[in-house]
Amino acid sequence: MTSRDGYQWTPEIGLAQGVPSIGVISPSTNLTSGSGPWDVIVVGAGYSGLTATRDLCVAGLRVLLVEARDRIGGRSWSSNIGGYPFEMGGTWVHWGQPHVWREISRYQMRSELEESFDFSRGVNHFQLRANNGDAIMSHEEEDALLSGALEKFVNIDGDMGRKTFSFAHDPFHVAEARKYDDMSAKDRLQEISLSLTPNERSVLESFILLCSCGTLETTSFFEFLHWWALCGYSYRGCMDHLISYKFKGGQSSFAIKFFQEALSTGNLSYVFNTPVESITDQGDTVALISRDGRQYVATRLVSTIPLNVLNSVSFSPPLDAQRASATNIGHVNQCVKVHAEISNKDMRSWTGISYPFNKLTYAIGDGTTPAGNTHIVCFGGFNNHIQPEENIDETKKAVENLAPGNMDIQRLVFHNWSKDEFAKGAWFFSPPQLLSTSLDALRARHGNIVFANSDWAVGWRSFIDGAIEEGTRAAMTVKEELRPSVAPRPHL
Amino acid sequence: MTSRDGYQWTPEIGLAQGVPSIGVISPSTNLTSGSGPWDVIVVGAGYSGLTATRDLCVAGLRVLLVEARDRIGGRSWSSNIGGYPFEMGGTWVHWGQPHVWREISRYQMRSELEESFDFSRGVNHFQLRANNGDAIMSHEEEDALLSGALEKFVNIDGDMGRKTFSFAHDPFHVAEARKYDDMSAKDRLQEISLSLTPNERSVLESFILLCSCGTLETTSFFEFLHWWALCGYSYRGCMDHLISYKFKGGQSSFAIKFFQEALSTGNLSYVFNTPVESITDQGDTVALISRDGRQYVATRLVSTIPLNVLNSVSFSPPLDAQRASATNIGHVNQCVKVHAEISNKDMRSWTGISYPFNKLTYAIGDGTTPAGNTHIVCFGGFNNHIQPEENIDETKKAVENLAPGNMDIQRLVFHNWSKDEFAKGAWFFSPPQLLSTSLDALRARHGNIVFANSDWAVGWRSFIDGAIEEGTRAAMTVKEELRPSVAPRPHL
Repeated sequence: MTSRDGYQWTPEIGLAQGVPSIGVISPSTNLTSGSGPWDVIVVGAGYSGLTATRDLCVAGLRVLLVEARDRIGGRSWSSNIGGYPFEMGGTWVHWGQPHVWREISRYQMRSELEESFDFSRGVNHFQLRANNGDAIMSHEEEDALLSGALEKFVNIDGDMGRKTFSFAHDPFHVAEARKYDDMSAKDRLQEISLSLTPNERSVLESFILLCSCGTLETTSFFEFLHWWALCGYSYRGCMDHLISYKFKGGQSSFAIKFFQEALSTGNLSYVFNTPVESITDQGDTVALISRDGRQYVATRLVSTIPLNVLNSVSFSPPLDAQRASATNIGHVNQCVKVHAEISNKDMRSWTGISYPFNKLTYAIGDGTTPAGNTHIVCFGGFNNHIQPEENIDETKKAVENLAPGNMDIQRLVFHNWSKDEFAKGAWFFSPPQLLSTSLDALRARHGNIVFANSDWAVGWRSFIDGAIEEGTRAAMTVKEELRPSVAPRPHL
Repeated sequence: MTSRDGYQWTPEIGLAQGVPSIGVISPSTNLTSGSGPWDVIVVGAGYSGLTATRDLCVAGLRVLLVEARDRIGGRSWSSNIGGYPFEMGGTWVHWGQPHVWREISRYQMRSELEESFDFSRGVNHFQLRANNGDAIMSHEEEDALLSGALEKFVNIDGDMGRKTFSFAHDPFHVAEARKYDDMSAKDRLQEISLSLTPNERSVLESFILLCSCGTLETTSFFEFLHWWALCGYSYRGCMDHLISYKFKGGQSSFAIKFFQEALSTGNLSYVFNTPVESITDQGDTVALISRDGRQYVATRLVSTIPLNVLNSVSFSPPLDAQRASATNIGHVNQCVKVHAEISNKDMRSWTGISYPFNKLTYAIGDGTTPAGNTHIVCFGGFNNHIQPEENIDETKKAVENLAPGNMDIQRLVFHNWSKDEFAKGAWFFSPPQLLSTSLDALRARHGNIVFANSDWAVGWRSFIDGAIEEGTRAAMTVKEELRPSVAPRPHL
């Protein structure tokens, strides 16, 4: 099936909107005239919504899943072009991410992972293009450069942040940590600027921007330190957790497991292509009205609408002031992720940074396509923003500039997350002061409405793991309230 | 409630068998004449059995949980003496353990953890007592000594084992890894012996034996490297993952959540104090006969009987040859874990190793009891084995020898895992060649019988995490086979 989402460019066809994905659900609904009423409406079929839906259906509750798009996965989905997955959003997973790993283990998908990096052949180098000149270095030199720069950046307590962020999944556990949410990455860079070499500064800023995809001024230092703690307080840990292991079949091959399991219970109704207009808590029930005027009613509603989109839906009673304020501020991540298929096989073992002049900053060899080409994945952000479909020549140039002379582009694949009205950005990354003021408010319920999204997870916030954490929390909350009476059911 | 399990010694009372635990289930059964038939019998109420039971009950299947003891938790349970938990078995958890962390997150118990180490006051040192003399050093020196020694031990590939054990949750992923299961820790020590200082050798051997609680000859080097990979390839990672974070209320405060959730579904029958005599697969059903002659029948049976105990139950048809052989070999962990409450408050920040002459080898300050005493937890193993209740003076001496003059013992608490007929040892640790020959066989089903135990988990094998991994796998397997038809249930 082909999703409306995403873009593809090839020399033969040029730019085309929509890419194939195994996450497209067809037919788009299983509603019949006799469907409903429901115990729970779940809004959104990303990992939060899929997890909540599955857990509720398995627990015997009747669920209606409402999704604006034609596909599952939200901000994590793969286009499957010629059987090869290009990850349009969230990609990498790791066994240090507890909620996602539990699911990989449960669905027996451990052996369906592969490594992005392959330094066994080809150029096998790191290419740094910065204002102070170009350099080619070994991956060991790349690691040493990034590791040294990062350690200067995070070493707030003489122990690489370990003392201050000792509970990675309870980051406000040490009160001292809170003050770092008043600082931006820019503020911290100024504190350590005299200790950084020009190359250290270039790769450090690039790495920070790869995480936040905002600007240095809009990147919370607290949130960066939280990521650092989650990754085990080392650069190697960051690389392992953030950008190493992915699904051979793509994210959609994982997401579909949740959907299929929910469906197999017989308790799932679903309707795709259905953007939400309003959500009204009527006291004993919650009513959802879609943009095209359909109404659905249930006892509880789980909203997985992302932070940056929440103010596009009308809530009654209105959202509390703190949540509304946080939603209007929003998160800062405007990631531009562009996949390039290039003919140079030797680039499989290449990594590169071009900063700050280039529109795409950080890139790695990520795979080999069925045609035998090298798959390069490239990242840019808000600091030097492009809308990649608007000027495809500019986008191609941004790819080519990462490794001049070595990027013979055969295909581009991407999704424009900034112009996606149901995301308005990529993974959550907070500006200073958003989390320390608003995290509790974002996690609070609103009458019969429960909010679940990776954007306000406690642990791997921003990650697929955080989405599953949140979907699990929502389902547990609702299940405990609506669970069947304890009278035993008849034997099956 | 007081369990039959465990021992306590105080100067006033002397040695007494049985300790209070919130994991004791009373009354010991909820069976009535009308109970059953069941979809599934789960044998064992440790974390594997509790997880399988809960997941199956939540999914609408009718479960009978059969447990030999008077309590839940298996090899992980806390005595709760005066409200203070002494962990009799499995203790520490970490967010890098995916299955256990998912449950901590789901039960909203994140803030119920605390750190074992507290170096903020008191003696704040490490005491090493070895054949070549005694030494007092700072904890930083302790870390440097252990870290340096461990890195020599694990550095099989020039990258601290990362190349060979790159997938920590799929340890045979790199074929090269398999050969390390032919080696014992002793074999590896011989390879690097010239590079070790006497103190390095002492702490390294102590640390290895702390992990396996066997002997150096019976400790698989492969399995040690697997632990190392799981812990992120560093000594700091080992300390964080293995011995840092525990439940303020004890393990039984966590285990009881699973039991209560299962019970709340109305689908759970349970019977404690019921050791199993035989399990017979009758083709379409499985029959369990207890030692006292009661018979229970279900469509499927999940056995969570540990490896070292499996050959005490009669299976019909008999277990396959490979599984039977592995069971007869067994794992090698004969941990002796003794808690000492001592009056010296300054010892809260003490750690110590006494090796090889002492009957207890490794110990740390683990807490402060309600009486204001310091809680020291001490470990010994098979290399210098004691049965701690048989000669309490010898046991006291082993504690006192860890820090002569500083161990004014007010209380001892322990469980003898070696003499426990339902465990026959502590956490799984493999001798050489057991895993490479038998892991697949141990994980295989046997007709309508599914086997689930941390002893043959893939990831955090030996840990609570592995138990939950296995319980999850068993429940998923059985649920997929027995799930209700997809006809929607009536609205609740």
